[in-house]
Amino acid sequence: VSDATRSPDPGARSWWGWGWESEAVSGDALAGVGALLAARFPRGPSPSEVSVPDPEQLDLPAVRVAPPSSLIGLCATDARSRASHTYGKSFRDVVRALAGDLAAAPDVVARPEREQDLVDLLDWCSGSRLAAIPFGGGSSVVGGVEGGAVRDRFEGVVSIDLTGLSGVVEIDSLSRAARIRGGTYGPALEDGLRAAGLTLRHYPQSFEHSTLGGWIATRSGGHFATNHTHIDDFVESLRLVTPAGTIETRRLPGSGAGPSPDRLFLGSEGTLGVVTEAWVRLQQRPRHRATAAVRFTTFDAGVRAARAVVQSGLFPSNCRLLDPNEAAGMDEKGRSVLLLGFESPSFAVDGLAATALECCLDHGGEAPAGIETSSARGAAGTWRGSFFKAPYLRDAVARLGWVAETFETSVTWSGFDALRAAVDVAVAGVLDPGPAVSCRFTHVYPDGPAPYFTVVAPSRAGRQLEDWQAVKDAASEAILSAGGTITHHHAIGRDHRPWFDRQRPDLFAVSLAAVKDRLDPAGVLNPGVLVG
Amino acid sequence: VSDATRSPDPGARSWWGWGWESEAVSGDALAGVGALLAARFPRGPSPSEVSVPDPEQLDLPAVRVAPPSSLIGLCATDARSRASHTYGKSFRDVVRALAGDLAAAPDVVARPEREQDLVDLLDWCSGSRLAAIPFGGGSSVVGGVEGGAVRDRFEGVVSIDLTGLSGVVEIDSLSRAARIRGGTYGPALEDGLRAAGLTLRHYPQSFEHSTLGGWIATRSGGHFATNHTHIDDFVESLRLVTPAGTIETRRLPGSGAGPSPDRLFLGSEGTLGVVTEAWVRLQQRPRHRATAAVRFTTFDAGVRAARAVVQSGLFPSNCRLLDPNEAAGMDEKGRSVLLLGFESPSFAVDGLAATALECCLDHGGEAPAGIETSSARGAAGTWRGSFFKAPYLRDAVARLGWVAETFETSVTWSGFDALRAAVDVAVAGVLDPGPAVSCRFTHVYPDGPAPYFTVVAPSRAGRQLEDWQAVKDAASEAILSAGGTITHHHAIGRDHRPWFDRQRPDLFAVSLAAVKDRLDPAGVLNPGVLVG
Repeated sequence: VSDATRSPDPGARSWWGWGWESEAVSGDALAGVGALLAARFPRGPSPSEVSVPDPEQLDLPAVRVAPPSSLIGLCATDARSRASHTYGKSFRDVVRALAGDLAAAPDVVARPEREQDLVDLLDWCSGSRLAAIPFGGGSSVVGGVEGGAVRDRFEGVVSIDLTGLSGVVEIDSLSRAARIRGGTYGPALEDGLRAAGLTLRHYPQSFEHSTLGGWIATRSGGHFATNHTHIDDFVESLRLVTPAGTIETRRLPGSGAGPSPDRLFLGSEGTLGVVTEAWVRLQQRPRHRATAAVRFTTFDAGVRAARAVVQSGLFPSNCRLLDPNEAAGMDEKGRSVLLLGFESPSFAVDGLAATALECCLDHGGEAPAGIETSSARGAAGTWRGSFFKAPYLRDAVARLGWVAETFETSVTWSGFDALRAAVDVAVAGVLDPGPAVSCRFTHVYPDGPAPYFTVVAPSRAGRQLEDWQAVKDAASEAILSAGGTITHHHAIGRDHRPWFDRQRPDLFAVSLAAVKDRLDPAGVLNPGVLVG
Repeated sequence: VSDATRSPDPGARSWWGWGWESEAVSGDALAGVGALLAARFPRGPSPSEVSVPDPEQLDLPAVRVAPPSSLIGLCATDARSRASHTYGKSFRDVVRALAGDLAAAPDVVARPEREQDLVDLLDWCSGSRLAAIPFGGGSSVVGGVEGGAVRDRFEGVVSIDLTGLSGVVEIDSLSRAARIRGGTYGPALEDGLRAAGLTLRHYPQSFEHSTLGGWIATRSGGHFATNHTHIDDFVESLRLVTPAGTIETRRLPGSGAGPSPDRLFLGSEGTLGVVTEAWVRLQQRPRHRATAAVRFTTFDAGVRAARAVVQSGLFPSNCRLLDPNEAAGMDEKGRSVLLLGFESPSFAVDGLAATALECCLDHGGEAPAGIETSSARGAAGTWRGSFFKAPYLRDAVARLGWVAETFETSVTWSGFDALRAAVDVAVAGVLDPGPAVSCRFTHVYPDGPAPYFTVVAPSRAGRQLEDWQAVKDAASEAILSAGGTITHHHAIGRDHRPWFDRQRPDLFAVSLAAVKDRLDPAGVLNPGVLVG
């Protein structure tokens, strides 16, 4: 991860796909992916390349609103701004962008430079019946930052790009906490903490392309595979701007004073307010590491070992179980692999790793390399490198006209086997030839794992979205029926909304709607997401 | 703790004071406490014993309501039922009970036997404008279960005693979780888990006298001094009855699907609904233990050591720093003592304890006995014994006509010194002679400690409540001004309400009120607490 924590040469972010424009799979590499797909699915249609359109050449809907003169300096209506704020980065988004479909573009992209700008923008939106779509890094893979779907219900759609409200403002080294603006990208956040020897150590796959405010709004999952996994646990206090006013919670290490205000806004996906600042809990940078890559003949044996480790009271920072597809190339016998890692700023962790490894060996694991004390090498390092590349590969599949989707959940240990079987059966049934499905655990809890599925399926240009939706529907239905959550860390957005509505208690939806009525009385904040 | 986890011979619970009637300090022991107080405060008024009245002989207000015939079998109006549900167990409550003041008694004490009874009772209360006061173990020390204050605003007050809705219903051993009814007292809960080798291991000081539902409603703090400290982290899902209907959340090890519904109800103190069941996360019973009692010449040095330990990434189950008053009798030189403890069901923890101890020695600590591996003995065991006795001693002080109060908070490490100084100064200034104030840390977090204060002050019968209020006001004001929370684990109730109202963001109060309007439209649930 160390590389990813440094600000890379910025280059340009892709307007149509994941991450950096320069990192997109193209040319021979793209053809290579096509050849691999064709070999894997000999019965499937041939992958065929879609080219990336030039946004300046695409049709954009006419701009319907004019910002007031006081805000005009913050507002852009150029083609590239609007195109790059039309969608997030879900598979559906990428396919629509590649198809040059920008009918969902916002009328205006607003870029507040100070918190007061945001207050003024929300006033304008509330007063003029404009949908206000908070937009951090825009890396949502669930349709969380898209105003197109509600375009016709509003006089206009304003995408509010928050990345101008960025920076580490204040560090409290004694309490190991920092006040950081919501629009700060992951690498800039870590850059701002490095001199103090501190780190948030929160690395969602989108780390380079998402912001602290986005992590908070979506309850993102991060680096740690056990114990404190979500950003929730690292938030000490929050500051939000809502159409009804500003909310700032008190910095507290712990509290029992009523329901937690922070927890009401964590996961609110921009529907109740916009996170402008947070105090977050930091760590010292780790100096001691120990990792092991444990092989299991069956995935089930790996499941039992992962469960035993996390129920033992050990807190590995990594406890990632990969099925043979996910572990491809890591084990010469094609076995499942459990990546175990421990780290600490202050004490050697070999002993803890040895205890965890012993536990795995008791469950039939084999660890040819034993425990390694440098995280940069070994199986874990290899895997981590491919982790940050994976979304670019997904885009390659999209460009080749096929379908790729990832989805994730969490479920009790007692419910996991049935859930996995249900997902496999459901996804296999929707397309012919059936998709390739792989599974890993991203996080594990004493009461259950967080399984993550990757699906790749043959499709044809023109049918991609239909085929993708069929996979999504089947998988989501299977997850819900088997007792899982519709998302463990990808958020709900528009894509997961139908299943979220079945998952949450009805009276909780009523409660959220009541809160929204008070904080966003005009109903302009990210309308259609979560509530209403 | 092992003794406290077994159901004791039930005996009778005290109607006027803490816990078991048989454990109240009386006779020679009470006189002994009086002598100690007199010696400690030679300038104070002499402690003089107040006798405990017989509730059958006291005046109770006339019962104003008649339950419908369908509910009459669940409803009691006898003197002892009403007297024992008039108050919780705060100092103010004890003084009022000892004074024979039962003007605040509920009209009816209802004891639902099934969830449907509770539904029917809430329907009756909503329809007849009766305040419904959820009452678990009734051990609130903050005025959280008292309907007297709103007596005149309602046609009647019904105290709903939930201890009939009790028992461990279902255990999922694979996922290490259990479904447990809200009215289950601590010891019965542990009894129900013991055969499965599992434990919730949540031991608030009220453990024997409070219920799972009460812990959830008040966000109680438990056994673990670091990492997962509050009941919040052990709740996998909840079931509540509200006047608007029943809410059941999904059992999930982790989730990022919108704001957490559980967290909206955790800490809602009976104002939004009544917890009838919860799935809670369990542990295997610990088999390995290692403890140390580290002495520090100054409290400040102990603070630095505790901070270093909790920021190291170690997770001691105990990391309780006692100032010399709290540690009285534990160290022959009258030093501050840091009680360190590690435990595990599955691996030896001596190594972790040694690492933590080394960290303490680096900060000037001394540990004459080194690391001990039996938790029943040593300084930690001694201290734990007195921990569960402490509330009986507080009642003794009340019976002697003096003032005793405990309050607690949490604050960042950078704010702690100023907070402690502010509390000491504020409390010292309100009475003459000034009270004795002692301080310990009950829990510690990477970003700050949870300090707990005990105050004992001379007073006179007739002035006790006034003097207590003066202490409470001064301490609460100091805590709020210094950036602390008005409660880390005692809840808000009526006693902390004025400071909670200053602590929480205004728009969060607006949000909670909006939720209450929907879930409790008649406003009958614990009125006056938290909202409205």
